[in-house]
Amino acid sequence: MEDFDLCIPTKIIFGKNRIPEIGKYAKDYGNKLMLVYGKGSIKKNKVYDMVIGSLNKEGLEILEFSGVKSNPVLSHVNKGIDLARKKNIEFILAVGGGSVIDTAKAIAAGILYDGNVWDFFSGASKIEKAIPVLTVLTIPATASEMNGGTVITNEDTKEKFGFIDEHLYPKVSILDPTVTYTIPKEYTAYSAVDACMHLLEGYFTHNDGWFPVQDRYVEGLVKTIIESENILLDKPEDYDARANLMWSASLAWNGLGTAGVAGAEVPCHMFGHVLGAYYDIAHGASLSIVVPGWMNFMVDKKTKIFARFARNIFDIKEERDKDAALKGIRTFKEWFEKIGSPTSFKDAGIPLNDIDSLVDSTFDLAKVWGIKEYTKDDIKEVYKMCI
Amino acid sequence: MEDFDLCIPTKIIFGKNRIPEIGKYAKDYGNKLMLVYGKGSIKKNKVYDMVIGSLNKEGLEILEFSGVKSNPVLSHVNKGIDLARKKNIEFILAVGGGSVIDTAKAIAAGILYDGNVWDFFSGASKIEKAIPVLTVLTIPATASEMNGGTVITNEDTKEKFGFIDEHLYPKVSILDPTVTYTIPKEYTAYSAVDACMHLLEGYFTHNDGWFPVQDRYVEGLVKTIIESENILLDKPEDYDARANLMWSASLAWNGLGTAGVAGAEVPCHMFGHVLGAYYDIAHGASLSIVVPGWMNFMVDKKTKIFARFARNIFDIKEERDKDAALKGIRTFKEWFEKIGSPTSFKDAGIPLNDIDSLVDSTFDLAKVWGIKEYTKDDIKEVYKMCI
Repeated sequence: MEDFDLCIPTKIIFGKNRIPEIGKYAKDYGNKLMLVYGKGSIKKNKVYDMVIGSLNKEGLEILEFSGVKSNPVLSHVNKGIDLARKKNIEFILAVGGGSVIDTAKAIAAGILYDGNVWDFFSGASKIEKAIPVLTVLTIPATASEMNGGTVITNEDTKEKFGFIDEHLYPKVSILDPTVTYTIPKEYTAYSAVDACMHLLEGYFTHNDGWFPVQDRYVEGLVKTIIESENILLDKPEDYDARANLMWSASLAWNGLGTAGVAGAEVPCHMFGHVLGAYYDIAHGASLSIVVPGWMNFMVDKKTKIFARFARNIFDIKEERDKDAALKGIRTFKEWFEKIGSPTSFKDAGIPLNDIDSLVDSTFDLAKVWGIKEYTKDDIKEVYKMCI
Repeated sequence: MEDFDLCIPTKIIFGKNRIPEIGKYAKDYGNKLMLVYGKGSIKKNKVYDMVIGSLNKEGLEILEFSGVKSNPVLSHVNKGIDLARKKNIEFILAVGGGSVIDTAKAIAAGILYDGNVWDFFSGASKIEKAIPVLTVLTIPATASEMNGGTVITNEDTKEKFGFIDEHLYPKVSILDPTVTYTIPKEYTAYSAVDACMHLLEGYFTHNDGWFPVQDRYVEGLVKTIIESENILLDKPEDYDARANLMWSASLAWNGLGTAGVAGAEVPCHMFGHVLGAYYDIAHGASLSIVVPGWMNFMVDKKTKIFARFARNIFDIKEERDKDAALKGIRTFKEWFEKIGSPTSFKDAGIPLNDIDSLVDSTFDLAKVWGIKEYTKDDIKEVYKMCI
């Protein structure tokens, strides 16, 4: 095992009808908060009413800042920072999915920083402080509710960058699986894909060998996510399936899966982030477009690991590693198809007429993220395998 | 899934040669600390020197309080509280295993409490505050380094009681697997047994059904603990086996395995705690004495769960649930025997001439812990199956 530091200080409040508890926790962080949310879906499913009701009950002063879109953008973050500064906001409550929480974290960091908040994303500067962030999660996928990460797209540079810092862990996150009943079918699928890939990136890329604590953790959660998503295809209001998907997604990217693992990288997220920045497609969809192609590109280098994935996750019995690996890749791709997540550019309706520019951006991101061993030719080859 | 609250704020510093970092973290909690340790084994393996060196480097004032024994006792805790009060101690550093850390936590809670610290253990009072505790772990087993629990024996009443409180999470815990190389063979075995049973108590006792996130988490870690312990029988200095055992033991009882699980109880710990209080045997040993008997007593009520345990942990292929369950129980017992942990009173050299008194104490503890469905006859029957 590799050395690691790990601290996950977020308090998780999980269960049915627990959103009205938010006021009780929020009041510990001040009187004046910014309520960050998206395009208003929280007003349709009563989450907004529950949150406002609970905050009002504690007499808290609320400044609303809505309009966060998926693949959240820097310009919107900067607007939030200006507004929060003007109104002397003490803490932020994010109500939504990963995009909303990531926007809230970026505002929380930017508000106390003299320079451009993008400095944290580009690596030009390091966070020294942030105002507290609390969350009410409505779309499980990114685990932003239980980690110190944030991912924002800079529209000017077409860069979708993220970073992780201990100051950005939410203080409290409320997870109520019942509010996820109404997530559209395709977005539930994207959530499942995203959570699986958070778990599997390290599993596929770590140094050869077997990290029994972490690899079994990953395998167990991926199996659970796949099973839960399969149940939800027919029964979107199955509480246990929603609960298992929601909690698995948090556990998928809160640091536990990779703590102690040597050599874990996130190449599929690298490809996916570039696609997201170029074509503004949902993050989970960008991953399922890339993953089968990437796996086929890597299968000869990672035969043993893909074979183990096939056997331990899909119970594939093929004796030869290569056969098992290929069958595992096919099975994973067929699962994407079954749940309705696109598995190629064509499938997603992306023309791919600008492949060289995509390749250049991916190559640049690989350098920023320290993902080695990908030449421009390799990257182009991966994209070609995803057409 | 059941509703839950979960927060594990302890910062884990894991890896080779990291103990000298303790001073850097300690200085954030004050200038005057109590250093709690056991019978002095930390002086033989250089841990003491590393800790003192690091604390001195930061100019911290150290009050030593040693002599903690396994199955740590209330009288010693009270001595520590008196001493810490007299010297105006600001925080505590525990260097040792679960007994040392539990003693440190009890002192940390007692020092700020007007009454008798036993009130927290008996349930007569609830902690409102505690001074900070940091730990350097030298014996993995109890997960006290990553949870809010403490277990102390009251010598007068022969009660071994524990409780859990959010104020008792260590702030920082340093885990260096290399310092566990010199743990005697039998104590490594007891550690492995204890960690397995932390995981399996909930797994065996929860409401019927399958909790896929938590049950798979448990299965993966138990398999890893068994494999690691098997490697250590021959190679006590295998770093990865030590590291996997150490990290698994922390993950085994930090709250993740039972969060969201309905109906989890800890009956084997109940029996084991009473044995520990009566005969002062190592905690892990008390568990391996009780577990096979308890499983045989329960096999008809829990056939499905024991069958799943047998299949998923030991890869047992028997088709009939009862056959699989019985073979799983036998295999688990054989593993205890192989690693040198006693599997009966006789094996542990305990005469068991006072079974009625044991039964009464166990029955009382069942009430305190809210473990239902055990009549005195049931308890006697379990003990008889362990003779």
